[in-house]
Amino acid sequence: MAPRGYIDAGTKWYYILHPRPVYIILAEHAGSANFMAASWVMPFSEEPPRIVAALEKEAYTTELIKESAIFTVNVLGVEHIDFIYGAGTISGREVDKLSILGAEVSRDTITGAPRLTKPRPIGVVEAKIHRLLDELAGDVYLVVADVVAAYADESLFNTRYGWEIRKAKIAMHSAGRAFTTNNGLYVARRKRS
Amino acid sequence: MAPRGYIDAGTKWYYILHPRPVYIILAEHAGSANFMAASWVMPFSEEPPRIVAALEKEAYTTELIKESAIFTVNVLGVEHIDFIYGAGTISGREVDKLSILGAEVSRDTITGAPRLTKPRPIGVVEAKIHRLLDELAGDVYLVVADVVAAYADESLFNTRYGWEIRKAKIAMHSAGRAFTTNNGLYVARRKRS
Repeated sequence: MAPRGYIDAGTKWYYILHPRPVYIILAEHAGSANFMAASWVMPFSEEPPRIVAALEKEAYTTELIKESAIFTVNVLGVEHIDFIYGAGTISGREVDKLSILGAEVSRDTITGAPRLTKPRPIGVVEAKIHRLLDELAGDVYLVVADVVAAYADESLFNTRYGWEIRKAKIAMHSAGRAFTTNNGLYVARRKRS
Repeated sequence: MAPRGYIDAGTKWYYILHPRPVYIILAEHAGSANFMAASWVMPFSEEPPRIVAALEKEAYTTELIKESAIFTVNVLGVEHIDFIYGAGTISGREVDKLSILGAEVSRDTITGAPRLTKPRPIGVVEAKIHRLLDELAGDVYLVVADVVAAYADESLFNTRYGWEIRKAKIAMHSAGRAFTTNNGLYVARRKRS
């Protein structure tokens, strides 16, 4: 029973917290690499630098992360939504998802986990599991991970304010096949006290 | 040492995972209500419906949440960034932040926690703490909370696809005083297999 003027979101309650940046998460174990799309990933702690991610227990990439303890979070521009949607809907457990989607990776990372090189991400966070919590929900793990390295396209990011928000077009997931990106720069007036 | 073409994000690593929707979180305990801005909040589990939030241990609103175990997450349109910035920079511990920022609340919620009514949010999630994890980082709690109710502006949200992404203009935090919003609808082509 929602207040007047509002509609109860029902089972789609989580869309109230969307749109969100969507990432490609890559991992590898025993010679098998795979990746998936995920938008339920966020910064958690500045110091120590840590992120949290909600990872589907049944996903193949999650299995690789659990085994290897390392993964990369890759930020793509909105021009790559077909790739992202494919990454989020094809399972790499029985097919070669990298090949099907034309993805290429590099292992020149600090952790050794593969990072995406094609399509070229505009930002990458290399992460290592700090804690994997399996009893906080049904079919997802809550993964708390240390940030081992983090870098972004030098033409789109600066180390003071982050993204050049008028230039970088971050892929964000709205719902299903629907995506969006950031629009314009809005600057808050400084509060006078 | 970032790969060629990339810049190391340094201490601003978390901006790689921005811009993100930014929320106003409200709570109340023993007659004292307060609110703060937060963007490190995300859906965590569909079933059971749960969210996670990174909450600064020292924040007054966090203290109220810890005492009462209930809070609301309020989504605002980008036209309210001055309010959001004020909410994120003024502490309500020693001043009446609601009054200073002209906020109004209602307690007509299932949980009894205050929800924002002025400025009018376009979406609200009512939450109740499931677990408060205090040892996963230094100065933040990781709060895992049950979603008790969730509703959104009936003219901007539908229960199938969520936000009408061309109409709703969600406030998103970029960095410091810089905000952005969503831009347009991009639809992924269905992957043919």
